[in-house]
Amino acid sequence: MNQIPNIVRIGHGVFYVTDLERSRHFYVDLLGLNVLHESPGALYLRGTEDREWTLKLELAPEAGIKHLAYRVAGELDLQLLAELAEALGLPHRWESEQDRPRMLRVQDPFGVPVAFYAESQKYPWLLQRYDLHKGPGIQRIDHINIMTPQVEVMTRWYMDKLAFRMSEYTEGDDGKIWAAWIHRKGNVHDLALTNGTGPRLHHFAYWMPDAMSIIRACDILAGAMQTEAIERGPGRHGVSNAFFLYLRDPDGHRIELYTSDYTTVDPDFEPIRWSLNDPRRQTLWGAKTPKSWFLEGSLLEAFGGGWVKIQESELQGLPQHVI
Amino acid sequence: MNQIPNIVRIGHGVFYVTDLERSRHFYVDLLGLNVLHESPGALYLRGTEDREWTLKLELAPEAGIKHLAYRVAGELDLQLLAELAEALGLPHRWESEQDRPRMLRVQDPFGVPVAFYAESQKYPWLLQRYDLHKGPGIQRIDHINIMTPQVEVMTRWYMDKLAFRMSEYTEGDDGKIWAAWIHRKGNVHDLALTNGTGPRLHHFAYWMPDAMSIIRACDILAGAMQTEAIERGPGRHGVSNAFFLYLRDPDGHRIELYTSDYTTVDPDFEPIRWSLNDPRRQTLWGAKTPKSWFLEGSLLEAFGGGWVKIQESELQGLPQHVI
Amino acid sequence: MNQIPNIVRIGHGVFYVTDLERSRHFYVDLLGLNVLHESPGALYLRGTEDREWTLKLELAPEAGIKHLAYRVAGELDLQLLAELAEALGLPHRWESEQDRPRMLRVQDPFGVPVAFYAESQKYPWLLQRYDLHKGPGIQRIDHINIMTPQVEVMTRWYMDKLAFRMSEYTEGDDGKIWAAWIHRKGNVHDLALTNGTGPRLHHFAYWMPDAMSIIRACDILAGAMQTEAIERGPGRHGVSNAFFLYLRDPDGHRIELYTSDYTTVDPDFEPIRWSLNDPRRQTLWGAKTPKSWFLEGSLLEAFGGGWVKIQESELQGLPQHVI
Amino acid sequence: MNQIPNIVRIGHGVFYVTDLERSRHFYVDLLGLNVLHESPGALYLRGTEDREWTLKLELAPEAGIKHLAYRVAGELDLQLLAELAEALGLPHRWESEQDRPRMLRVQDPFGVPVAFYAESQKYPWLLQRYDLHKGPGIQRIDHINIMTPQVEVMTRWYMDKLAFRMSEYTEGDDGKIWAAWIHRKGNVHDLALTNGTGPRLHHFAYWMPDAMSIIRACDILAGAMQTEAIERGPGRHGVSNAFFLYLRDPDGHRIELYTSDYTTVDPDFEPIRWSLNDPRRQTLWGAKTPKSWFLEGSLLEAFGGGWVKIQESELQGLPQHVI
Repeated sequence: MNQIPNIVRIGHGVFYVTDLERSRHFYVDLLGLNVLHESPGALYLRGTEDREWTLKLELAPEAGIKHLAYRVAGELDLQLLAELAEALGLPHRWESEQDRPRMLRVQDPFGVPVAFYAESQKYPWLLQRYDLHKGPGIQRIDHINIMTPQVEVMTRWYMDKLAFRMSEYTEGDDGKIWAAWIHRKGNVHDLALTNGTGPRLHHFAYWMPDAMSIIRACDILAGAMQTEAIERGPGRHGVSNAFFLYLRDPDGHRIELYTSDYTTVDPDFEPIRWSLNDPRRQTLWGAKTPKSWFLEGSLLEAFGGGWVKIQESELQGLPQHVI
Repeated sequence: MNQIPNIVRIGHGVFYVTDLERSRHFYVDLLGLNVLHESPGALYLRGTEDREWTLKLELAPEAGIKHLAYRVAGELDLQLLAELAEALGLPHRWESEQDRPRMLRVQDPFGVPVAFYAESQKYPWLLQRYDLHKGPGIQRIDHINIMTPQVEVMTRWYMDKLAFRMSEYTEGDDGKIWAAWIHRKGNVHDLALTNGTGPRLHHFAYWMPDAMSIIRACDILAGAMQTEAIERGPGRHGVSNAFFLYLRDPDGHRIELYTSDYTTVDPDFEPIRWSLNDPRRQTLWGAKTPKSWFLEGSLLEAFGGGWVKIQESELQGLPQHVI
Repeated sequence: MNQIPNIVRIGHGVFYVTDLERSRHFYVDLLGLNVLHESPGALYLRGTEDREWTLKLELAPEAGIKHLAYRVAGELDLQLLAELAEALGLPHRWESEQDRPRMLRVQDPFGVPVAFYAESQKYPWLLQRYDLHKGPGIQRIDHINIMTPQVEVMTRWYMDKLAFRMSEYTEGDDGKIWAAWIHRKGNVHDLALTNGTGPRLHHFAYWMPDAMSIIRACDILAGAMQTEAIERGPGRHGVSNAFFLYLRDPDGHRIELYTSDYTTVDPDFEPIRWSLNDPRRQTLWGAKTPKSWFLEGSLLEAFGGGWVKIQESELQGLPQHVI
Repeated sequence: MNQIPNIVRIGHGVFYVTDLERSRHFYVDLLGLNVLHESPGALYLRGTEDREWTLKLELAPEAGIKHLAYRVAGELDLQLLAELAEALGLPHRWESEQDRPRMLRVQDPFGVPVAFYAESQKYPWLLQRYDLHKGPGIQRIDHINIMTPQVEVMTRWYMDKLAFRMSEYTEGDDGKIWAAWIHRKGNVHDLALTNGTGPRLHHFAYWMPDAMSIIRACDILAGAMQTEAIERGPGRHGVSNAFFLYLRDPDGHRIELYTSDYTTVDPDFEPIRWSLNDPRRQTLWGAKTPKSWFLEGSLLEAFGGGWVKIQESELQGLPQHVI
């Protein structure tokens, strides 16, 4: 009988960056993420609520994403995941990272380098050390978004094999699924899937204390004359009802600051359907989305090195509400 | 082999009130809760995110609490709960409520009238109908708090029998447990237990969109010359890190407006210990707590009618940080 | 010897609207302005801090602006204004309005119908009646903005003749003035002047309690499916440092919700210069401004009836930071 | 004919502190005030909007207040003030301070050491350098409050001689004036007068960007385990409608963080009367005020050195709403 591994939540990302000091300026000096560890070639960052590092910046010749990792409940779940990878013929291997000695890295069937870990060294959080909060006060990791030409099948796979549950989805008039929001932790998502050339990382998102902290992020970037980092927002999403801001880091990796979605713990929660061309879907207030948001993303590292090949989607065309 | 029923979250409360129009003024006109149904003797209320009613006010000759109910995952869980009640000799019966045709009412071993339901009629939420939000914009049910002389044993029972997990607790210098916060839904609590004469309902809490909405609640009560309803706060709790306000309704039932706690989904989340006399525990900013907050609560309906007898706690004395 | 009339602040606007019920829905039901008086053909509105009406909507066959009025310190100042109008040959007459029995209406040298009054019936304000605040809680009148091909000369005239003081201005590389912000009341402006085809009213602005109340305005419009009313923002202006939102009413009149500028009471306050193509000028965060914001405005009533003729500006071209 | 000197606004305070590093920790590290200058024995601080220093901390053997200074419009106003001092026999002399080469120091008839200056060196503000804002982001000087047994006569003197205008006042049932709020700059006050043993400085207040920045100040003090600095609040005043927090610095000097009052520029603004025992006066939400707030203040430097002698007030007794 098949047992489904118990994935708890999105856990961390490892980003390749090409100039660590420039990235430090962006993530630490401007966005105020907290440095938990650093080494000559890497920075391990976290929000104020994170008891672990949640974003590693790793110096590399080219920008891209090394992997994206999920926290699982225990060692048994790692075993189940290894068995699943074996059974499906998915490339996989055991790796380790700082504070996470045992991590299963898998290339999912859609080309995404994902990792799973059950144990991580914990550190005292900074949540109530408000005197140490910096910048806009980023709080905790919330979710990732993968751009892929295979939204529908990939969504189904994560729901069937890994018991993700759907909160919302975007459907074209022809019944094709253009985007989906799925979760394990009981809010709107751990993983979003967006139609487009991919697989690529669309964005990596942190939870913020409130909408005003996101306004403060804009002000800080403006004060530092770094407004070109602001790609979209601030605004309120129709999908998720969250208040949001999208930024591009110095290597082009997209970061979302996100807050105030809703709870999805009820097992009979009925996924919310959005029509592709509903202007309130992207931004509840009707603001248009820049094209770059639909077209650009970060390359993903292939299992054997190099980048995962990307493919165009058969679902072509942008939503109408674009600038 | 024992299977543990899957409780999803706190679901609703049924309050006996002695003047329904006076209560309507407080809950609907001032606090802005939304009326989902009403009948000559009852009002069914909800927050903007609630897809079900979450607070029923029922006209009665005396004020008190009829029961407090948890949402469970499915019919199987109701069966397991019935078996548990049978096995432990707990008074129980099947009841129904508006929109909840099948509800198991149990008197827990500590005298608390609890109910469990798996199905409830759903209604379109008001979350994105901001044009219909009223007053401070109460969002969703969050938790209840029971005052009891048996905090430690009751906490253990809910953790052992119903798989609640602990997020925080308060301990005296002698190792006695004065309060505990336990949850099923992955934030700080569904159920808090506070030492004191009981069992009584200490408070019933709604989640608010942000701290400013709680400030707005204070302003609205002041505008309406109803500031005597404000018992404590606003402030930030040390426990839970939430921003809070405690109100007393016209019958003395205590309502908390609550926002911005943190996530507890990790299975190895280590409960946070607070020392009884740490002034930052109650209010992170050091504000003192009024005595009424420690001494007063709402009576609970006994299984056979009348009120559950209350007992003083062996843990006597108030924390030092009281006014 | 020339005495300069003492203008205190911007006082009110009278808007012609073509469907009073549709306008009432926008201003009262959605934006939450408070109705102080109403008659079959008119609504007199105010914010929660206003002790007088500050916006009159008057039913008319065509949309436009009847006049814009300033509060002056006393009767002597009205006399000085009448003498000034006489001396300069400006069309002027004595009029009255609801609550304002003695009002001097003048056509300024640039075609703008302005009125001046010293006395107005006062009413208890709603500032601390938070229980009566509606919608986003608009607080008080703040300023008007006139679009004109004569920014530089008009600015000088208001400064020389009426002792307005300058807080900020926008200058092209060639030293031409494209916009100016001038005030009497000690914040950034009572009157802004913007280059463009005119004279027309560019916008009429209310002060909001804080940035979150402006976010709430967006949410309310979205909830009511009225997002087409949102023309620009929310965002933070470079000029004025205010948090803003621009709306278009059902007749196209532009309303700004505005908050958090700064004080300009020092007599040696040095006006802040902005370069025309500085992207941070319009929105500190670098967001582009829609063309409609530069091109559209409300017609002004001519002294003898009909509309004031508008002229194109010699300063042609839009700032680069436009969409 | 008497000409009244034109006072523009409150300008600065000079505080004697007994441990400059301890004070720096409080004002700079925790409250985030910005250091404009420093010397071995002094720190010159300002908010983000201040173009001048507004608070000088001066090392001294005993804590107290050296003087409190007002900005006047020009040199003529300084002359008028000198003539007034001469005419009334008020002790006065010309002094200078950092950036303020010409300052008239006067002992007012009630024992308060006040200074007046027309010119001050200006520095680029930090208002839009959000990347440099620290802590809660204190914005600008707003007002001072003097505790005095002579509220009524002192209020009248400042209104008659210096053209202060009254916004609000507190009256006992017997018609005695217990407190008054008077201003020059067009908001609620530059100078408040509170009944009590004096003359002493009751508090020195800075304007904050919004209510959430005041919440942040509480959180920061809590994070740094400095909650004993919080004396009262946060809350909303009935008087002024402002959101407030009172802190005590390491020498006991009281600082108010204050935001969101209203405009008083109309010449016919009618002062708002509060009854002494109206609980909404002190805090609109009805919260009680600690006794220390009524009883404690900072000593003022006498003209010839030493401290101004303080006297009890004939108006004895505290308002009822005290803890």
